[in-house]
Amino acid sequence: MNIFSPGHTCKNSKARCGVMHLPHGDVRTPVFMPVGTNGAVKAVSKDDIEEMGFEIILANTYHLFLRPGADLVQEAGGLHGFTKYNGNFLTDSGGFQVFSLSKLRKITPEGARFQSHIDGSYHLFTPENVVQTQVKFNSDIQMQLDVCSGFGVDRKEAVSALEITTDWAKRAIKEWQKEREAGYKGYLFPIVQGNFFEDLRRQSAEFVAGLDSAGIAIGGLSVGEPADEFVHFMNYTNQFLPEEKIKYVMGIGTPEYILEAVAAGIDMFDCVLPTRNARNGSYFTHDGMLSIKQERFTHDFSPLDRECNCKVCRTYSRAYLRHLFKEQEILSSMLASYHNLYFLNNMMKEIRAAIENDTFETYKKSFLERFRAGNIQ
Amino acid sequence: MNIFSPGHTCKNSKARCGVMHLPHGDVRTPVFMPVGTNGAVKAVSKDDIEEMGFEIILANTYHLFLRPGADLVQEAGGLHGFTKYNGNFLTDSGGFQVFSLSKLRKITPEGARFQSHIDGSYHLFTPENVVQTQVKFNSDIQMQLDVCSGFGVDRKEAVSALEITTDWAKRAIKEWQKEREAGYKGYLFPIVQGNFFEDLRRQSAEFVAGLDSAGIAIGGLSVGEPADEFVHFMNYTNQFLPEEKIKYVMGIGTPEYILEAVAAGIDMFDCVLPTRNARNGSYFTHDGMLSIKQERFTHDFSPLDRECNCKVCRTYSRAYLRHLFKEQEILSSMLASYHNLYFLNNMMKEIRAAIENDTFETYKKSFLERFRAGNIQ
Repeated sequence: MNIFSPGHTCKNSKARCGVMHLPHGDVRTPVFMPVGTNGAVKAVSKDDIEEMGFEIILANTYHLFLRPGADLVQEAGGLHGFTKYNGNFLTDSGGFQVFSLSKLRKITPEGARFQSHIDGSYHLFTPENVVQTQVKFNSDIQMQLDVCSGFGVDRKEAVSALEITTDWAKRAIKEWQKEREAGYKGYLFPIVQGNFFEDLRRQSAEFVAGLDSAGIAIGGLSVGEPADEFVHFMNYTNQFLPEEKIKYVMGIGTPEYILEAVAAGIDMFDCVLPTRNARNGSYFTHDGMLSIKQERFTHDFSPLDRECNCKVCRTYSRAYLRHLFKEQEILSSMLASYHNLYFLNNMMKEIRAAIENDTFETYKKSFLERFRAGNIQ
Repeated sequence: MNIFSPGHTCKNSKARCGVMHLPHGDVRTPVFMPVGTNGAVKAVSKDDIEEMGFEIILANTYHLFLRPGADLVQEAGGLHGFTKYNGNFLTDSGGFQVFSLSKLRKITPEGARFQSHIDGSYHLFTPENVVQTQVKFNSDIQMQLDVCSGFGVDRKEAVSALEITTDWAKRAIKEWQKEREAGYKGYLFPIVQGNFFEDLRRQSAEFVAGLDSAGIAIGGLSVGEPADEFVHFMNYTNQFLPEEKIKYVMGIGTPEYILEAVAAGIDMFDCVLPTRNARNGSYFTHDGMLSIKQERFTHDFSPLDRECNCKVCRTYSRAYLRHLFKEQEILSSMLASYHNLYFLNNMMKEIRAAIENDTFETYKKSFLERFRAGNIQ
């Protein structure tokens, strides 16, 4: 099971390029995936996504399972038929949302029982039915059901969450293998857990490394821990993962975290941050986050970011974007989401080029110095 | 002062084609203008507007005067520089919004004093300063300040509103002429009022007909009166207006009203309806309005309107559009607004072709029969 063609690895770091071969086309890595929770990236169309050059997006199993339901998505021809986005879809397992969104949840060895945050209805996610759900979605990459424990929980809880996650990984892989034999083309990624305990992380990583999978996710990071803990545990975990497999860190979307992850040799990331920030009037720029609501942009007719080539920066002024945000125009969310995604995608392109040229460490340093200085002119 | 090149007039009705020559390009008439209240058509970009082929859009003086202010718009290079939409802008005078939105208002011969609905600040609109404001916007067509009286008011109130409107028309024209001499390229349209009294309408129409203007608006219609009253007073008023001038009926956007207006020989219309309906999940189709929230579309994988060639109908299913609406995705508003505007613009193209072929009456009849039957398959 190999879907990864490794490219160059940077001489001065673990950062690496590659190409991931998926049912709906090749994906150049490292890659950032926009999040389309309900089968739609918020405030951008699939045409925008294609125009920006994204090759893979994420959708949420928990949300789509509840509405419109997996059977309807299947009937529509999977997520691609339903949404008409013809690139690749990665779907998460819904495990994280069960913990963060649902009203009640009870984890047993069997699965995760929960109450919908929408209508209070009761549901059971098992490792097996979550695989089946994602098969109905025809996900190009699906994730195993896991138990994500928060930052600061005690060892006992971390051990218990890991034990269940480990058992569920085996059951998920078994179910997925059956589906593969029946013709399903997508891949399943198991997830490393172990909270913020090195021995548990190592145990989980070594176990997951031995499973039949084309890629591996490092879960349970970016859950509220300090940045240095994030970096430490990402690197610590990663050393036990095989180089021939795709490595994915879930839930990161700031330039800082992405650059750290790339430096660690991670290939994939996703986050709602670029589009959520956008709806709040917060724009990525080379000089840090720009809050368009600030008074000082009222008469500023310069582009958002002079060095960005996106159609928003090539067209509109800060003054107009501020006006749209203040008036709560939908166009504000549309333009800001487009820009933020374009900006991150462009950063990924630059990162891949820097890796090819063995200049990633320099790129990272100068990008972060400027980004952190926040010296918006 | 002539900006209108009349084209063919239908043999069997008063419906007519033409071309209106404006500072930002020619506009084929009859024309429907999308409304961009704050200098942005809701949930569509200027690229969408251009892609659909609109040649003129409307913006609201009242809103833009309050925020971001006329000076800022002027500093940005007028509405075109500010919004980057390079077609034509028609701006209304703000009179209607003073009546419908502001907290307090007092009409005196001098002008309309009102309190902002946003921050309670006090302002005075006069015929002169409203012209100056629209000059700062660099509007291609600007409207005079008028007093719009509602349906059902008594004759005394209608007479009073008309007297003020008549006086303000003279003052507005005078101010506009000064601005023209100073280099302003836009046009000013005075407005016929007179409420639902034939003699007042005639008096107003005959007065306005004699003013120095390239076009004339019929105001005070579509303000809550029954449809037959609307049609009657539109036709009644129109007979006193000169054929060589552009004729504009404000605030209409349903296929029924547009077809009636075209039949009466009207050249221009505007309305928020297509985009407002869109945000409420209500789509124009050849078979009437389609409410996408209906249960029956849950598993309906057919296009919204099989005969519509817009990118929404060519791409997405009713089931997906319903899902987006139910999930309150911004994309729902984006796609619905695009479709509704495309649908109306396409209807205008068909109307112009039918007029050229002397088949407008047949087109109108068959369009309305089908639209009213509401037989959505």
